Amino acid sequence: MTQVAVVMGSTSDWPAMQQTTLLLEKLGITYEKHVISAHRMPEQLQTFGQAAQKNGLQVIIAGAGGAAHLPGMIAANTLVPVIGVPMQSHALNGMDSLLSIVQMPAGIPVATVAIGDAGAKNAGILAAQIIALHHEEVREKLVVFRKEQTQKSIVSEAELI
Amino acid sequence: MTQVAVVMGSTSDWPAMQQTTLLLEKLGITYEKHVISAHRMPEQLQTFGQAAQKNGLQVIIAGAGGAAHLPGMIAANTLVPVIGVPMQSHALNGMDSLLSIVQMPAGIPVATVAIGDAGAKNAGILAAQIIALHHEEVREKLVVFRKEQTQKSIVSEAELI
Amino acid sequence: MTQVAVVMGSTSDWPAMQQTTLLLEKLGITYEKHVISAHRMPEQLQTFGQAAQKNGLQVIIAGAGGAAHLPGMIAANTLVPVIGVPMQSHALNGMDSLLSIVQMPAGIPVATVAIGDAGAKNAGILAAQIIALHHEEVREKLVVFRKEQTQKSIVSEAELI
Amino acid sequence: MTQVAVVMGSTSDWPAMQQTTLLLEKLGITYEKHVISAHRMPEQLQTFGQAAQKNGLQVIIAGAGGAAHLPGMIAANTLVPVIGVPMQSHALNGMDSLLSIVQMPAGIPVATVAIGDAGAKNAGILAAQIIALHHEEVREKLVVFRKEQTQKSIVSEAELI
Amino acid sequence: MTQVAVVMGSTSDWPAMQQTTLLLEKLGITYEKHVISAHRMPEQLQTFGQAAQKNGLQVIIAGAGGAAHLPGMIAANTLVPVIGVPMQSHALNGMDSLLSIVQMPAGIPVATVAIGDAGAKNAGILAAQIIALHHEEVREKLVVFRKEQTQKSIVSEAELI
Amino acid sequence: MTQVAVVMGSTSDWPAMQQTTLLLEKLGITYEKHVISAHRMPEQLQTFGQAAQKNGLQVIIAGAGGAAHLPGMIAANTLVPVIGVPMQSHALNGMDSLLSIVQMPAGIPVATVAIGDAGAKNAGILAAQIIALHHEEVREKLVVFRKEQTQKSIVSEAELI
Amino acid sequence: MTQVAVVMGSTSDWPAMQQTTLLLEKLGITYEKHVISAHRMPEQLQTFGQAAQKNGLQVIIAGAGGAAHLPGMIAANTLVPVIGVPMQSHALNGMDSLLSIVQMPAGIPVATVAIGDAGAKNAGILAAQIIALHHEEVREKLVVFRKEQTQKSIVSEAELI
Amino acid sequence: MTQVAVVMGSTSDWPAMQQTTLLLEKLGITYEKHVISAHRMPEQLQTFGQAAQKNGLQVIIAGAGGAAHLPGMIAANTLVPVIGVPMQSHALNGMDSLLSIVQMPAGIPVATVAIGDAGAKNAGILAAQIIALHHEEVREKLVVFRKEQTQKSIVSEAELI
Repeated sequence: MTQVAVVMGSTSDWPAMQQTTLLLEKLGITYEKHVISAHRMPEQLQTFGQAAQKNGLQVIIAGAGGAAHLPGMIAANTLVPVIGVPMQSHALNGMDSLLSIVQMPAGIPVATVAIGDAGAKNAGILAAQIIALHHEEVREKLVVFRKEQTQKSIVSEAELI
Repeated sequence: MTQVAVVMGSTSDWPAMQQTTLLLEKLGITYEKHVISAHRMPEQLQTFGQAAQKNGLQVIIAGAGGAAHLPGMIAANTLVPVIGVPMQSHALNGMDSLLSIVQMPAGIPVATVAIGDAGAKNAGILAAQIIALHHEEVREKLVVFRKEQTQKSIVSEAELI
Repeated sequence: MTQVAVVMGSTSDWPAMQQTTLLLEKLGITYEKHVISAHRMPEQLQTFGQAAQKNGLQVIIAGAGGAAHLPGMIAANTLVPVIGVPMQSHALNGMDSLLSIVQMPAGIPVATVAIGDAGAKNAGILAAQIIALHHEEVREKLVVFRKEQTQKSIVSEAELI
Repeated sequence: MTQVAVVMGSTSDWPAMQQTTLLLEKLGITYEKHVISAHRMPEQLQTFGQAAQKNGLQVIIAGAGGAAHLPGMIAANTLVPVIGVPMQSHALNGMDSLLSIVQMPAGIPVATVAIGDAGAKNAGILAAQIIALHHEEVREKLVVFRKEQTQKSIVSEAELI
Repeated sequence: MTQVAVVMGSTSDWPAMQQTTLLLEKLGITYEKHVISAHRMPEQLQTFGQAAQKNGLQVIIAGAGGAAHLPGMIAANTLVPVIGVPMQSHALNGMDSLLSIVQMPAGIPVATVAIGDAGAKNAGILAAQIIALHHEEVREKLVVFRKEQTQKSIVSEAELI
Repeated sequence: MTQVAVVMGSTSDWPAMQQTTLLLEKLGITYEKHVISAHRMPEQLQTFGQAAQKNGLQVIIAGAGGAAHLPGMIAANTLVPVIGVPMQSHALNGMDSLLSIVQMPAGIPVATVAIGDAGAKNAGILAAQIIALHHEEVREKLVVFRKEQTQKSIVSEAELI
Repeated sequence: MTQVAVVMGSTSDWPAMQQTTLLLEKLGITYEKHVISAHRMPEQLQTFGQAAQKNGLQVIIAGAGGAAHLPGMIAANTLVPVIGVPMQSHALNGMDSLLSIVQMPAGIPVATVAIGDAGAKNAGILAAQIIALHHEEVREKLVVFRKEQTQKSIVSEAELI
Repeated sequence: MTQVAVVMGSTSDWPAMQQTTLLLEKLGITYEKHVISAHRMPEQLQTFGQAAQKNGLQVIIAGAGGAAHLPGMIAANTLVPVIGVPMQSHALNGMDSLLSIVQMPAGIPVATVAIGDAGAKNAGILAAQIIALHHEEVREKLVVFRKEQTQKSIVSEAELI
């Protein structure tokens, strides 16, 4: 059983969402990836959401842009934690995506991360942090990952010339 | 068969959406009204959307606030035209509702009107204009309604004292 | 008699509004297209609006940018439903266009769609959905169109590599 | 012949636009006032705009809110300078009014002032400054007005206790 | 060992953050609550963050407003998942809080929820969903909670009169 | 004596402000042009403003970007009408320029036009409309200009292919 | 010689700016306070700015709202560091004040603090931090002030009931 | 002992922050430069902040983007004045950086300058103005710098052709 599902509304979201999968791989987490358009595939969305728990998913990461309904509607159909990644949209730079994802009404939460690539990467890390609560191996990989990125920041100072 | 369904995400949207129903009544249009929370009642939403056409609905008016997914998700489940009314939300004054409703991706349109009461009223009028295309009686009521509101504006000038 | 008029404020709006006409063609809807600048051609705007109904138009689609008055002013002159398409403006990315179109006061509705190309496409689809209420052939084309776009989304998952 | 016309979209704009008329009176300028809703009275708007010059108007001040089309549409119908006053709207605090008025496309200018009361007052003063170019008496009143307001600011320092 | 820590920058955040604790109680989750001002208590913040894991915390919920650094800075000091709740700030209605929390750079994620009360409630539910992944009892409470809130929405339709 | 002064905060504003001078030339208006940085040349600004009237200027057009203080500070130093043109700034696309210019407090008006090139052009036209109130030749040029631009819009329809 | 001048555009800014003076008093700093409207008193502004240094001022704190030109224009007239406090304006909640103050072009800096009361308080503290660089007594008062506010935050946790 | 520390969250901020160091050099101020990521190096941030005063720093300039916590968190750890420079972020053009830096709660001020290069330059100048309060040589360099930039603006008028 895969641990995480990475879902996106369109293949045009893949360049960003691939940042998520690269981090999941780095942190030793198994994942599956899907295109599920909330608006073009509402039935598949519902089927996917309702089956998420019995399919053993521990985290669902959903990226979407504009009037981004995918993360919230998946969340409405499952108790598995959903992380929403707002895509950087064409006209409004992702402000529409962000508000459509984060401003969920009380009752159905979506764990929202930053707009675009930074958020896509953090979605992978956040999923790992959740899984690491009961998965020593992932936790250790996270410890190493954090140390490495701290070290990389420290030594980068030498580049300021 | 009712002509229009007025749907809202929560009873807290009723004070605004009642403006819609008052106008529908004034314009001689039959309607039904429902609370369907996109996030708390996703299955009911789907059932409602999929049955809309065979139930004879000609227009669906959906009001929602915040990360407002209701209009777009109904539209994803039917070919009946959907009018979206952005509620004036608590923190962001309805800017979140507006963007969540209007910024639909290509493929599934939502006919969006103004934030709050003005939009709720206009949703009723827009529904009437659509129905009037093939309904002489509604068209005549609209002609009268327009004339009256023009007249009211004209005579209101006398109040400027 | 054509079913839909596609109107724009300037030829610079044509690349976006052409998305509308392509969809109207695909969905079997007859249309005419016009440049009517609300500010440079106010008399023509009024003449056009006032004649819309007797010319048999069932939907008017109006695209405009910046202080976008075209959709609202056409709507003020006719009972034919007007769909407004906010152009992606130079400085403010279409936020000015969007607010100028969608925030209509109570009394005169404009059915607003998304900023730019997505909205232009959806304007064509929404017009088709309105016409389809009394036009079986268009309705069938819409059913096929929806199925195809759902299918396209489903198979696009294979591109995630 | 009156020198200035003060026009507003609705009587609800009167509390703000009355600030304009009070300043016009103070600066010795004759004015007339009208309710002309761009959307409910498009024909009257056109008639008013087209007759403005031969009626001897030297400045037109137009206040409107939301999708505020009144100032721009009057400007499209006359060569008389038009000052636009964005009303503080209900949901978006006048940001919609401001953008709908100020973001006019090249060709038809509207002289836009601040949102709400400050703008309404300044519209009156700006009209006076334009008229004063060829009206010595108004110019002298403006000189006094400016001196008084400077003096008032200077002495107000004593209130800081 | 408590499962969740609810942290806020100031006691003025308590009316919102109490919504979080009420939901945690309802869902059978143990929690502790703290005031840790990121700016007034930076050392305590660091100590708290660094000890979070060995103190057995499974989720940290942090509410803060304005230039809201608390959630991100806690996240920088621990691998325990951090949920950020943007307070509705005085001047900018929480838009500053939201951006300060959600726009984290790649490397350190914060799971952001909606501005204000809705977000505070959802933070509690999201924490429960994370804990429920390995806690059958909490999962069952969540199932009941969801069913109840769905049921409440369904029956609320009767209030539309 | 020149009729209009075109002032800008920096030579980097020249590409936009040149649009103003081209229109002034087309409309037969004499003008002078200056670089006066409000922040780098505050004394020159004051000297310029205070001398404007006795130098016979009938309109001052001031373009500035970012925290754009030039138009408002010139207006504070003269009774000659000031038109402000918000430059399209680097980071915030001119929203900062617009608000810095248009949101003047009661007492000192600035006639604000659109952000960037459209506004720069309209500043020239608006100046001409003000001058035309007492200058028949300019008025006639404006009539021709308007007719030409209307005609250009009308014939542009043929380009929609 | 007073160490700090607290300047505001209008007495209506006093409730906020009084927060500044209260903190200056608490931190043992001498100050004078003035109303100088940038737009109504441009000459006084210039005189004040040009004399600031020889009057021995070490910091100038300027509060203003809307198109807030006061801080930037004082800064243009002196080398004394200027701290700008954006007032919470009526229509736009201080976003206009903030951008008008902070977005200064290269060459003339204004040290900008938060909108409203929080910023007014911080302006006083920041002035104290600057003075404390060469004033041991103020430095000691700041140390005590910081400790007290930290302590106050720590003990406030007991109020969460 | 260096007078100023220039700190940035990442080497990607260097192109902007180098503008700061160039101005510090021009104004004869010694400086050191560091990469300290608030989120990846929270311990180093704290160590740096707490040692700032005893290391003799008189001003700290901190540049950061997105959820920009660096300036505020350094300020929380020292009494040395901190100048914050908001980087022009990818998605939101620096509006997120600006609000994250400027909207500090009462108690811990950050002297915020403009977004991007203009702000980076002004940070260097502002630091010099603070140091110049007790450093005659720097003051004289500032006087020359100001004169030169005024002169440059004056002569630039000749380029308007």
